[in-house]
Amino acid sequence: MKSTTEYLTFRTKERREYINITRRIEEIVRESGVQEGLCLVNAMHITASVYINDAESGLIQDFDDFLERLAPHEPTSQYRHNRTGEDNGDAHIKRQVMGREVVVAITKGKLDFGPWEQIYYGEFDGRRPKRVLVKVIGE
Amino acid sequence: MKSTTEYLTFRTKERREYINITRRIEEIVRESGVQEGLCLVNAMHITASVYINDAESGLIQDFDDFLERLAPHEPTSQYRHNRTGEDNGDAHIKRQVMGREVVVAITKGKLDFGPWEQIYYGEFDGRRPKRVLVKVIGE
Amino acid sequence: MKSTTEYLTFRTKERREYINITRRIEEIVRESGVQEGLCLVNAMHITASVYINDAESGLIQDFDDFLERLAPHEPTSQYRHNRTGEDNGDAHIKRQVMGREVVVAITKGKLDFGPWEQIYYGEFDGRRPKRVLVKVIGE
Repeated sequence: MKSTTEYLTFRTKERREYINITRRIEEIVRESGVQEGLCLVNAMHITASVYINDAESGLIQDFDDFLERLAPHEPTSQYRHNRTGEDNGDAHIKRQVMGREVVVAITKGKLDFGPWEQIYYGEFDGRRPKRVLVKVIGE
Repeated sequence: MKSTTEYLTFRTKERREYINITRRIEEIVRESGVQEGLCLVNAMHITASVYINDAESGLIQDFDDFLERLAPHEPTSQYRHNRTGEDNGDAHIKRQVMGREVVVAITKGKLDFGPWEQIYYGEFDGRRPKRVLVKVIGE
Repeated sequence: MKSTTEYLTFRTKERREYINITRRIEEIVRESGVQEGLCLVNAMHITASVYINDAESGLIQDFDDFLERLAPHEPTSQYRHNRTGEDNGDAHIKRQVMGREVVVAITKGKLDFGPWEQIYYGEFDGRRPKRVLVKVIGE
């Protein structure tokens, strides 16, 4: 069994951003030499997500609107978590709805993707360095 | 390490449908010969889900009502994504809430399931051929 | 390839409870002897979740409020599923929002975690024995 572990670091300018990381994951899989296996990609922080969906700017805005409607950032006093001095109670909930991780099949040395699948890093409390883990296992 | 890759294709009659695919996944696991390992099952399209829950028709309708309340199909003009000419903005959001994939343990050659776990394909923008990937790895 | 399978049983006093199970998963990983691999942790019941987020009591209450707002327990008659004699229609939906499982990387013999990641068992229909599966594979 082969395995590879990589860490990507992101520091977004905005509180919430959505970054297409597909190319970087493809490179890691290629360099791993794994032909058949699994690739786990997960946010290492609990106010961010890794998810798979479309690289279409309108849809990304739709996701952001949806998440703000479900768990608005303001007023920050609506979240008990923020009594600890934080202001990111909403970000923990947004991350939970969008998910922490994706597991992608590797077939014949490549991410085995449908036509529109793209891997995104979803940041809900940015403006500081945060990490994503990539783990490849297989043969 | 052994591995098996299979693709299932679904073409639903309705826009939204929920299909129990447990038996087909069990067959693929049996044929793989893997005794201890993991089975990944994921939608390859970004307007569909694979999830695990109950095979009970009332609950399936409850899920559908819940998703329509969170992200209604109509009016289609409420989603920026639909300005591209699509009408499936809601389906991308519904899929995100229900999830893309499941990872199931294989123990002694079988899906290691609790008493009520059933694997479902959740279609939110059907009426065309769409695929599900099944990847088995282990020994 | 090495693999380990363990089952944890929980019987909560309340209908809904959130239990930090990180220490128990760490022990299972240590005992497995796996240095590089993956650890799957999933609820085996379809009215419970395994998820990763913060060990902060205010946030846990925020999650609970959020889930009750999305899919309230009462009135139980609002869910078709409850016509079967159950009263847990809401619990199936809450579990779906929070997720069934987590897949965690194992690196150098340990759960490869960010600074605040903690594994939680989220119970939405407790007061009876329910199980969580832990599967470790790797080398």
